[in-house]
Amino acid sequence: MKNYLIIPAVLIISGLNLTAQNSVNNIALPELQKNHSRTIINVPDLEDYFTMKCDLHMHTIFSDGVVWPTIRVREAWEEGLDAIAITDHTENNPSKQDVGGDDNSSYNIAFDAAKDYNILLIKGTEITREMPPGHFNALFIKDANRIDVTEAVDALMEAHNQGGFIIWNHPGWKAQQPDTCIRFDIHNKLISERVINGIEVFNEAEWYPIALNWCIEDNLAVFGNSDIHDVNGHYYPLSIFHRPMTLIFTKEKSLDGIREALDDRRSVAWFSKYLTGPEPLLSGLYNKSVSVRVLNEKDSMGRSVIEVKNNSDFHFEFEPVSGKAPEFIVRPNSVVLIRINDTTLPDEFQYHIKNWFTDMNKNLKVVIKCKKS
Amino acid sequence: MKNYLIIPAVLIISGLNLTAQNSVNNIALPELQKNHSRTIINVPDLEDYFTMKCDLHMHTIFSDGVVWPTIRVREAWEEGLDAIAITDHTENNPSKQDVGGDDNSSYNIAFDAAKDYNILLIKGTEITREMPPGHFNALFIKDANRIDVTEAVDALMEAHNQGGFIIWNHPGWKAQQPDTCIRFDIHNKLISERVINGIEVFNEAEWYPIALNWCIEDNLAVFGNSDIHDVNGHYYPLSIFHRPMTLIFTKEKSLDGIREALDDRRSVAWFSKYLTGPEPLLSGLYNKSVSVRVLNEKDSMGRSVIEVKNNSDFHFEFEPVSGKAPEFIVRPNSVVLIRINDTTLPDEFQYHIKNWFTDMNKNLKVVIKCKKS
Amino acid sequence: MKNYLIIPAVLIISGLNLTAQNSVNNIALPELQKNHSRTIINVPDLEDYFTMKCDLHMHTIFSDGVVWPTIRVREAWEEGLDAIAITDHTENNPSKQDVGGDDNSSYNIAFDAAKDYNILLIKGTEITREMPPGHFNALFIKDANRIDVTEAVDALMEAHNQGGFIIWNHPGWKAQQPDTCIRFDIHNKLISERVINGIEVFNEAEWYPIALNWCIEDNLAVFGNSDIHDVNGHYYPLSIFHRPMTLIFTKEKSLDGIREALDDRRSVAWFSKYLTGPEPLLSGLYNKSVSVRVLNEKDSMGRSVIEVKNNSDFHFEFEPVSGKAPEFIVRPNSVVLIRINDTTLPDEFQYHIKNWFTDMNKNLKVVIKCKKS
Amino acid sequence: MKNYLIIPAVLIISGLNLTAQNSVNNIALPELQKNHSRTIINVPDLEDYFTMKCDLHMHTIFSDGVVWPTIRVREAWEEGLDAIAITDHTENNPSKQDVGGDDNSSYNIAFDAAKDYNILLIKGTEITREMPPGHFNALFIKDANRIDVTEAVDALMEAHNQGGFIIWNHPGWKAQQPDTCIRFDIHNKLISERVINGIEVFNEAEWYPIALNWCIEDNLAVFGNSDIHDVNGHYYPLSIFHRPMTLIFTKEKSLDGIREALDDRRSVAWFSKYLTGPEPLLSGLYNKSVSVRVLNEKDSMGRSVIEVKNNSDFHFEFEPVSGKAPEFIVRPNSVVLIRINDTTLPDEFQYHIKNWFTDMNKNLKVVIKCKKS
Repeated sequence: MKNYLIIPAVLIISGLNLTAQNSVNNIALPELQKNHSRTIINVPDLEDYFTMKCDLHMHTIFSDGVVWPTIRVREAWEEGLDAIAITDHTENNPSKQDVGGDDNSSYNIAFDAAKDYNILLIKGTEITREMPPGHFNALFIKDANRIDVTEAVDALMEAHNQGGFIIWNHPGWKAQQPDTCIRFDIHNKLISERVINGIEVFNEAEWYPIALNWCIEDNLAVFGNSDIHDVNGHYYPLSIFHRPMTLIFTKEKSLDGIREALDDRRSVAWFSKYLTGPEPLLSGLYNKSVSVRVLNEKDSMGRSVIEVKNNSDFHFEFEPVSGKAPEFIVRPNSVVLIRINDTTLPDEFQYHIKNWFTDMNKNLKVVIKCKKS
Repeated sequence: MKNYLIIPAVLIISGLNLTAQNSVNNIALPELQKNHSRTIINVPDLEDYFTMKCDLHMHTIFSDGVVWPTIRVREAWEEGLDAIAITDHTENNPSKQDVGGDDNSSYNIAFDAAKDYNILLIKGTEITREMPPGHFNALFIKDANRIDVTEAVDALMEAHNQGGFIIWNHPGWKAQQPDTCIRFDIHNKLISERVINGIEVFNEAEWYPIALNWCIEDNLAVFGNSDIHDVNGHYYPLSIFHRPMTLIFTKEKSLDGIREALDDRRSVAWFSKYLTGPEPLLSGLYNKSVSVRVLNEKDSMGRSVIEVKNNSDFHFEFEPVSGKAPEFIVRPNSVVLIRINDTTLPDEFQYHIKNWFTDMNKNLKVVIKCKKS
Repeated sequence: MKNYLIIPAVLIISGLNLTAQNSVNNIALPELQKNHSRTIINVPDLEDYFTMKCDLHMHTIFSDGVVWPTIRVREAWEEGLDAIAITDHTENNPSKQDVGGDDNSSYNIAFDAAKDYNILLIKGTEITREMPPGHFNALFIKDANRIDVTEAVDALMEAHNQGGFIIWNHPGWKAQQPDTCIRFDIHNKLISERVINGIEVFNEAEWYPIALNWCIEDNLAVFGNSDIHDVNGHYYPLSIFHRPMTLIFTKEKSLDGIREALDDRRSVAWFSKYLTGPEPLLSGLYNKSVSVRVLNEKDSMGRSVIEVKNNSDFHFEFEPVSGKAPEFIVRPNSVVLIRINDTTLPDEFQYHIKNWFTDMNKNLKVVIKCKKS
Repeated sequence: MKNYLIIPAVLIISGLNLTAQNSVNNIALPELQKNHSRTIINVPDLEDYFTMKCDLHMHTIFSDGVVWPTIRVREAWEEGLDAIAITDHTENNPSKQDVGGDDNSSYNIAFDAAKDYNILLIKGTEITREMPPGHFNALFIKDANRIDVTEAVDALMEAHNQGGFIIWNHPGWKAQQPDTCIRFDIHNKLISERVINGIEVFNEAEWYPIALNWCIEDNLAVFGNSDIHDVNGHYYPLSIFHRPMTLIFTKEKSLDGIREALDDRRSVAWFSKYLTGPEPLLSGLYNKSVSVRVLNEKDSMGRSVIEVKNNSDFHFEFEPVSGKAPEFIVRPNSVVLIRINDTTLPDEFQYHIKNWFTDMNKNLKVVIKCKKS
């Protein structure tokens, strides 16, 4: 039997075996084996913080997911993440008749793999109830089994008392709120008591703009999580977009660093080409990702030429605040040239990044200087 | 809780949901969801047989694989296969402490998914022993639990007596035969008694040319199987090659059809760009895949032009039997033009397909007619 | 000097050179050379006609294009086309001061390349005037120089009298009709006199739905052409879509065959995921591309399962005529499964293919039979 | 007529037009238009120099190339280059009968495009003769027409006297040296007189290892150039590799900066996955591209784990100098983990980068520190 369960055993070297034996006995075909390596996600750190790439909501065979816990670690490593939380449901589990273990099993099984791949593994569970109050992730908990209790509020309070950081998951999920995305009294109470500490403004393939406002208004941490049950590469088109994730801005690259950052609400949600979160964080990422310069010479038709360079994996859709400037897109790791016909170039253009949201109705506002510096 | 375990429940329609709601409550982002569809594998049927695409060796969480059994069905459906066998080990299982069930569990769990996806599911198990005799797949069995016995030969005979079709797996696997790929007495005995009915000439990412000769000489069925433990798309570069597979040539598209074809040894192994198996089957596939014609007009430099068209997903590397003709490649679903300078064109060229093997040392021989017909 | 201008000289064999010399003098790196082969476009023939893939509007250095004429032939060959027309402007040419030749030069230069690649080359030119009457392609002409006259109508009549087939190009082009897409008197006159024989309903990256109605109502041939000036692979995302093209349904694969088909108006325009043209032609293509069958067994939840298989490079978006059936997409060369919950399955569902147009407001209507046959 | 020849006219904004009109008159299909942007080539600057990406050998319609000169500029811009030289042959030109202009035409025509795209355009020509002396690129010349003289040496001296920087092109090209790659007396003379200033160690898809030694021994600048005649994206598989190029290490980003760097021999050739040039330059690039760290914790099997991170588009194949360490590959912009079983970890491992050459027989030598710092 080949031992695939304990993944690192087959990875003495994480590189392609180049030596193909050539005989009639056994010919290795290395072209059939993907080279397992970790893709670097190119997003900048902020001036004072590390930008950690995190996905804090996912499932395994120990609830209703379809993979063994170690796979979640390896997916995270290959896709360039820094930290994950496996959050199997403490409640009902359709595969229970064939699967053993308890509510801590997925964490325990993934623990070694996380160590082997240098992925930070946050202990978590999902508390899964009818609406209200709905579903919640409890992170940084000590024992998921003790959270597996009948009453939703009791479960939340147990998680809270364990020192847990609690996220309200997918508040606008249609299975629970078909036509609305509202807060119930219980949510307001738990938020005011600081039992609920964050909200998913994005989950799986849905985003809930109103929840972004709740985060801003009530000082809750913003999350964008995959909630992946499937194989990640089956569900998401990873050759086009990174997996949805929460970017967390930390003072140190550690579990403590992540917790401190979440307690201080320094996080944004990144999904598809969208980035959503507090204005200062988005503004900081923009400034570290985009550089603009006016070229020395006019072009052959006498126009000014402005070079806009995006040195990140983010996507930018520039929309002028007023109508005088051109609309344009800058894709990841690329450069565009903007040509301005006006004989009198203004000192600056004001733009919105129309796919970056600081509020359900507001886009990040940026300035493009037109004078040569 | 979202129910992902019973896959069809989320696939009322196997198509992309085009209607993105647009509100502050919940905005669907369909660009983040891959459209789950089945890719058609373009290989021709033979004159008298259907060409069925099969992978008859794979693992799940119920032995040392990393996915739930339903995933094996869905991978097969998406990748265009017709039939699979899940062959979890009857013996030791590193995850047993956390996984329940018995030796039939993976078949039982996958059964509904196979029905839902119209994939033929062959009941099987892997008998996993030290060499000799090594590892064997028993297919078309009735009860894997009864095969879970101490002695290897007892297990094989039990499978045989259940009506099982038995394959010797990866005979040249280095963990068992580091420097050799030989048959032991026990193999010769089991082959002569027709207990062993086939051999993997390819497994995972290795091929064993000598085993192809054994199949031809002793009338055993040829197999090329993935033995996949991992997520299939993690392990294999599916954007470049189809998954390794066994092509089985059947009179009808059914489990009975596959069994009859295997009993008659009508199968070949396809992996990377290689095809290996009995000459008549390879020859039949070549003739249905490749068409050659001499163009009407000479080209602008007075040369004859021969068009070679490959209407299949196979890959062809043409090597002239003698040195006078040019070497060339025809990739899947494409056409090349061969220009011949000779003033006197021969009636035909003899070529070898140097990536198609009818024997460990022999390539399929084909003829290219040079006269206009 | 390496001779690249006469392309076939470097293509004695249209295949990859596999033999890399290994010395300190000269090491060939075949991985840096694309294997030049022709991609097969997978669209079916109709019952009584060959489906020929044509692009009948393109430019070279001999007007305002940026490539040498032979490149147009090679692009066509590699991309799987059967026939092209190079239609350089007979009128003003911005590069004239550095480029010699006359209005027949691009045809003459491309002639040998077309022969070498077995591409049918239709002699053509573009008559390029202010609106009205606008731009026209004259195909199947004898001498472009004689069409290079002052008056637009004189040029059109000369082309007509040469036996030319005349297409009205991009009628809704904003540079000429910024807010409208209307026919002027001159167009009505030329159409009624059968001088204008066809219209581009698609050009470059624009489609003009109203022009489709004009074709249907006045019995004109439908065209979708690239009008490519740039390198084709620079302009179009060829890894996602085939180049825009006109499918022409011929009795024989020859220039005469194309002309007969155009005179009989047997053509449709294919661009992006859209197909537009007369209903009988679209219906014929649908029937040869899509096969539907009801699976034998109900799925695990008791639902009927209908398999829809698309054996072509076309794209299909199914939209139910009434609301009871599900909406779904079938991508090129793939299969989807439709699951129907209704206990009483109707005999059939009526669908529109919402990306196939038989009229500016009408989609192709198709029927999916739900009873097992 | 649409004006495509003067490229910037169609690029008021180098971004995708997002606004699709929706009417029966004219529907824009932006999905059919590639978004023209410049890809950032991710290679580090050296400590004291800018790393400029240059291709200094290419052809257009004004010799035996197949594209208009402006295309060379746009290809360079899109592919992320900083500087190019168009080096049309001063001698015979197979398209001359249809093409006008003189030996300076391609430079003159490309000049505005280069300005518009902020690409540095080095004035150049190719002096194309029988071997000996073969082919030479003269860069930084003043007037190519005056170089168009009968005798090879006269042409080279004229270029030299214009202040030209002269490169010996493809010394091992088989059309001129079928079995050898030797220097003739004339080369030795021109090198010693400093008329020849550099050599192509790579051209098109060939590399000449012995020429690297000549550069090192005789203090000549190293070049790797495309010599592209074709459309660049037709010839090279740009989705896999960047175009072959010369990296030049400059004090300032200008034509003068490039010239100063070449005069000081600060250049290397980059092609396929190979990098070749003087050891100090390769060593500098390695140190700025690769970072290595020993992880804090042992892995689950007690092994030390070393993370090797490649923050560049370069490719690294690590081969241990002695046999004790593992062989491994680090692909562009990715990370691998090396697991070391030895209980006594050495202080460091010595590796060769076996695809980086500092000599025809020598690979760059690097050290991996194994002690935690």
